[in-house]
Amino acid sequence: MTTSLDFYFDVGSPTAYLAWQRLRQLREQYALEIHFKPILLGGVFKATENQSPVANPAKGAYMATQDMPRFAARYGVPLSFNPHFPVNTLNLQRGAIAAQRAGCLEEYLAAIYPAMWVDARDMGDAEVVHGVLEAAGLDAEALLAATQDPEVKAALISNTEEVVSRGAFGAPTMYIGEEMFFGQDRLDFVEERLKAA
Amino acid sequence: MTTSLDFYFDVGSPTAYLAWQRLRQLREQYALEIHFKPILLGGVFKATENQSPVANPAKGAYMATQDMPRFAARYGVPLSFNPHFPVNTLNLQRGAIAAQRAGCLEEYLAAIYPAMWVDARDMGDAEVVHGVLEAAGLDAEALLAATQDPEVKAALISNTEEVVSRGAFGAPTMYIGEEMFFGQDRLDFVEERLKAA
Repeated sequence: MTTSLDFYFDVGSPTAYLAWQRLRQLREQYALEIHFKPILLGGVFKATENQSPVANPAKGAYMATQDMPRFAARYGVPLSFNPHFPVNTLNLQRGAIAAQRAGCLEEYLAAIYPAMWVDARDMGDAEVVHGVLEAAGLDAEALLAATQDPEVKAALISNTEEVVSRGAFGAPTMYIGEEMFFGQDRLDFVEERLKAA
Repeated sequence: MTTSLDFYFDVGSPTAYLAWQRLRQLREQYALEIHFKPILLGGVFKATENQSPVANPAKGAYMATQDMPRFAARYGVPLSFNPHFPVNTLNLQRGAIAAQRAGCLEEYLAAIYPAMWVDARDMGDAEVVHGVLEAAGLDAEALLAATQDPEVKAALISNTEEVVSRGAFGAPTMYIGEEMFFGQDRLDFVEERLKAA
């Protein structure tokens, strides 16, 4: 039986990047349908009075130098902690909504995520983003223009409010039915569900 | 080869309880030597300007109702979220130091941890603690008296400063050599190290 999973993510989160990588691996192995839900992580933090785990210097150092590299090695995926972190991802996440509406979200993420978390590009710079999208064969001009579309802006807000109403306080947050999984480090539980489905 | 692991814990943390349970299971399966290091979690939070994850209401609700029960089920151990949480564990942790010096720390933890995280006793109440220790056949009188010993007090402070100096920002925190593992949810990586040792 195919399992349907809602994946709420922000490209600015390195753990959401790891989840994106791992979920695509799981989709290769199991009958998994991923529903991509771009959100603004800053909006979730604001709504829930939470903050990024790496805002704490000791925790940030541990995550960047030990914890996240361990998971990247386990999944067999590249990861470089981006020196430009944290990046304001408002336009990138609006771009994700625009790409989803244009039917090219997976291609968009396959361009943006590695630029952010492998190549350590400065993704807060609109020109860099433009170049990354163009290099991937996407219509950078149209996607970036669409980030100013009121419907695109509203859809990002709506997704963000939706995930907060479902109990989230950070990203990535995944759901299978009512069951919530916070963090890429809970994808082993997701895999258990997929095995049992 | 026997692997030596430093386990910094506070009995007031439910995730440290889960780690305590899981580490004892791992010790049954692998050549693992656990060095128990009682700390004051509040002191770690203060030193690193961090706070309990459950201080955030949404995160606390998720952890108590979904996340920690999942791990308890995975490990096959009982867990009840204690309604008296958070408990001031200063005397309980001094008691752990005192028990360690008296050579009965493991018995002490086998009494205190279930009282806190299975039977949901009010462990901030000295009389309740006294009863729990007595029921376990421990010398409650002597252990509680020893919590006022300046050397015991100093040892708890010393352990707490030690783990902060090693990069910790919460509990449980474990080390194998220089490698740090934060959280009971990283014991699968610890198990990998044990398998490879």
